[in-house]
Amino acid sequence: MNGSQAMVKTLLAGHVDVCFANPGTSEMHFVAALDQATAMRCVLGLFEGVVTGAADGYYRMTGKPAATLLHLGPGLGNGLANLHNARKARSGIVNIIGQHALDHIHNDAPLNSDVEAVARPMSHWVKTTVSAALAPMDTAEAISQACSSPGRIASLILPANCAWEDSDPGHYSTEPARAAASPLAESIEAMAKLLSDKSRAANTVLLLGGGAMMARCTWLAGQIAARTGCKIMAEPRTGRLERGLGRVNVKPIPFSVDNAVAVLKDTKDIIMVGATVPVGFFAYPGKPRLMAPPDCTIHTLATPGHDLFATLDALCQAVGASKSTPAQLSDSALVGGFEDGAPNAGNIGRVLVGAMPEHAILVDEAVTSGRQLADTIPFAPAHDCIDITGGAIGFGLPAAVGAAIAAPERRVIALVGDGSAMYTIQALWTMAREQLNVTTVIFDNRSYRILRGELANMGGPAPGVNAARMLDLDQPDLDWVSMAKGHGVPAVRVDSLSGFDQALRRANATPGPSLIALRMES
Amino acid sequence: MNGSQAMVKTLLAGHVDVCFANPGTSEMHFVAALDQATAMRCVLGLFEGVVTGAADGYYRMTGKPAATLLHLGPGLGNGLANLHNARKARSGIVNIIGQHALDHIHNDAPLNSDVEAVARPMSHWVKTTVSAALAPMDTAEAISQACSSPGRIASLILPANCAWEDSDPGHYSTEPARAAASPLAESIEAMAKLLSDKSRAANTVLLLGGGAMMARCTWLAGQIAARTGCKIMAEPRTGRLERGLGRVNVKPIPFSVDNAVAVLKDTKDIIMVGATVPVGFFAYPGKPRLMAPPDCTIHTLATPGHDLFATLDALCQAVGASKSTPAQLSDSALVGGFEDGAPNAGNIGRVLVGAMPEHAILVDEAVTSGRQLADTIPFAPAHDCIDITGGAIGFGLPAAVGAAIAAPERRVIALVGDGSAMYTIQALWTMAREQLNVTTVIFDNRSYRILRGELANMGGPAPGVNAARMLDLDQPDLDWVSMAKGHGVPAVRVDSLSGFDQALRRANATPGPSLIALRMES
Repeated sequence: MNGSQAMVKTLLAGHVDVCFANPGTSEMHFVAALDQATAMRCVLGLFEGVVTGAADGYYRMTGKPAATLLHLGPGLGNGLANLHNARKARSGIVNIIGQHALDHIHNDAPLNSDVEAVARPMSHWVKTTVSAALAPMDTAEAISQACSSPGRIASLILPANCAWEDSDPGHYSTEPARAAASPLAESIEAMAKLLSDKSRAANTVLLLGGGAMMARCTWLAGQIAARTGCKIMAEPRTGRLERGLGRVNVKPIPFSVDNAVAVLKDTKDIIMVGATVPVGFFAYPGKPRLMAPPDCTIHTLATPGHDLFATLDALCQAVGASKSTPAQLSDSALVGGFEDGAPNAGNIGRVLVGAMPEHAILVDEAVTSGRQLADTIPFAPAHDCIDITGGAIGFGLPAAVGAAIAAPERRVIALVGDGSAMYTIQALWTMAREQLNVTTVIFDNRSYRILRGELANMGGPAPGVNAARMLDLDQPDLDWVSMAKGHGVPAVRVDSLSGFDQALRRANATPGPSLIALRMES
Repeated sequence: MNGSQAMVKTLLAGHVDVCFANPGTSEMHFVAALDQATAMRCVLGLFEGVVTGAADGYYRMTGKPAATLLHLGPGLGNGLANLHNARKARSGIVNIIGQHALDHIHNDAPLNSDVEAVARPMSHWVKTTVSAALAPMDTAEAISQACSSPGRIASLILPANCAWEDSDPGHYSTEPARAAASPLAESIEAMAKLLSDKSRAANTVLLLGGGAMMARCTWLAGQIAARTGCKIMAEPRTGRLERGLGRVNVKPIPFSVDNAVAVLKDTKDIIMVGATVPVGFFAYPGKPRLMAPPDCTIHTLATPGHDLFATLDALCQAVGASKSTPAQLSDSALVGGFEDGAPNAGNIGRVLVGAMPEHAILVDEAVTSGRQLADTIPFAPAHDCIDITGGAIGFGLPAAVGAAIAAPERRVIALVGDGSAMYTIQALWTMAREQLNVTTVIFDNRSYRILRGELANMGGPAPGVNAARMLDLDQPDLDWVSMAKGHGVPAVRVDSLSGFDQALRRANATPGPSLIALRMES
């Protein structure tokens, strides 16, 4: 048995049985080992951003890591942006990255680069295996790292000779390197005391993030809010949240600095459960960097490394809320349908909500077009939403691939801005090849709309010729129906709400992928 | 004047007047500054690999750096693979990479990452500017670095506040940080002496690389070979080479280890002029890493940092070859046309050569389909070829964008494998928007053909289901005509040599971009 075979055995023993791959020559022995392992599902991406984004989407829906297979420094480089998003979502991933044979690295062949250096900025753990004998042990360690709570990006670099030389799988533990920490009784007690003061609770925000946005957690938060009168909010972007009818509607802190400051303005205490301190997504001249008022006290009840359900459950009991009906429960569907017309950010929500099947997985990279969905989407049938946590666009389509492979019985709906979709458009082909149940909606507004707003936010003048050419996606317009056809995905273009409604219902009811180009006002 | 405006003024003063861009919020002040600078040509890429690859192609054809504008760590990450190719081609590029405001970095906002760490593996010079006042000085230094001989990748990281705060352009030198070194008279003399021994010269290879592949250099090398009887060869991949009728045909060392070892087997001395030691592109079990025989002596007459023309000129004079007719001159066109049939790697060369206009720029990312072109292409009309020096695929289409902007009066012909094209397919849109004179030929063989060969080279068995799914691009086939249409580029599919001939002649004669999907035997 060679090093690659021993590694693949270790991966399978550690329950890593999906490999998103874009291999090259230096990974051919690993490919041959995968070839013999029929229990491993191998999914090809035609670009590495698809590979890493799919592994992220997969983790978000399963809570367990997939492997990626990447080709040397440049292949890893192509995957970095979506590893960044995965890292910010606290997803676990086991990256297997090829490297030249150990006795060939110093020859500086054309594809040589410092692979560890490329991996480090977006990884929690980086290691180059130095012999075939050690390869399975290092693989087990990578799995342990990735399975930690929260998940971690583990990047294992595999020199070609370690892939082809003799090895043995051995028996190595793949138990998580770090388990979730239990909440401290003293902390629970202190926060319960704070919340027991009604007037103080009224100016307190229970801020949820990460795993605390799962329905069983938000339910507890809703109970705590109902009982104590505190507010509940969520981080602006969460790796995965469960939302919709029958669930507590925890609203995210807005993206815009002005709006975020406004919603937090009277806040005296923030109790963080799995969240991080609210900061501006970007810095702007003359605007604050921190969203909470300067005199607000921030209490970290639970870090992302804590057991967030146990924390909220303990707090719920401590404040005597276990029998309370939660606040902000989405308990009634939207009344009435929609009036037909031209689609815009304000009116598409009702169509989307009406056409969503139960237990859909919404991938949200709608950027500007999606912001106003917050008013309607909590009243959709119960669903999951996975969001672009790291802000690196090109996330949506690959994440949809991973989510669809993780949950084949559910419909994935990817809402993606046209600018964003172009970064990793190759994901469409993987959807076609794997016949994934993904409905892709492209918000076709022919511009990096967000940047037009941001240019104004920065206090700049209206864009002239050079700026407009960097902010607009026109001349020529992208032809999304042809683009999808090129990748093997059936597509339709719609420019009315009724057309959108019909297309969406048809797509959601048809097995396999399809794409809807939703023409928006530009 | 703010920092961005002072930087743009410095760029223009340093003759950097093309900016390939994919900006985000943190770069909006820089965008506003570009907007006011009408002398700066701003070219949008819809993905950062297009941006960096275009800057590389631009440098190769002009010898001067373009600027890139990239969005934070993830945007830079997306551009790394083509920066890798640029670094290996010794191209100069000035990367301007946005960063959060200095007082916001430690808040670890969602898009935060260690931008310097992302830049370092693929850059020669990395600096974060720390005040608007210093921004123009740092910009000048970046230009000096990029303009060095050979070119360097200079990555300047621009915190948002340094872009918006007050500054002044000042007067900073942008002279190259390192000029080309003159050849040492002693070295010339020693090599001339070596070559004066006819029997020793017969087993000597004059190995050219980098700038030594320009026609005026290969001419001198041909004269030296004619006079002394030495062999002349080229590095496997050169950043830019001038080739074709009326020029000396210097053949590259083959990609395959067996073939490379075979062509060098009797070599006792290698005299390197701008080249690096010949090594295997990859390591294979049981095959050598170094291509020259163990007893071969390697003489570095000139590094890539030397003046290679002056070196060859001095050597030519020292061996008394100044009046010799060069060896290996391509002095007669191919006789006869082609016989119609199904296109394959062996028969497309004659069609290509016949349809090439004078002074075309050939971008070579044909991978397997292109290897056999070496037999015919030296007999094409005089042309330039730019090659994928770093082996990171996804180079061809972006490089074609940059080359076309550098030389708008010339026809660019990009030969790209289907697998390769998919990595940076977004380049097609930039070709359409800028109406670039690029003929793209996609070698549509529905597989990563090179990897099927490499799997066999590694001694593995024939691919089974998992392997085939990672090596083939079928199920579904990519529809290249639709893909091109989606990006606004007219396209045609051909499956015969005569169809290829007609399509190529038409495309080359039509202003603006077009794409030919050349169906090959799979």
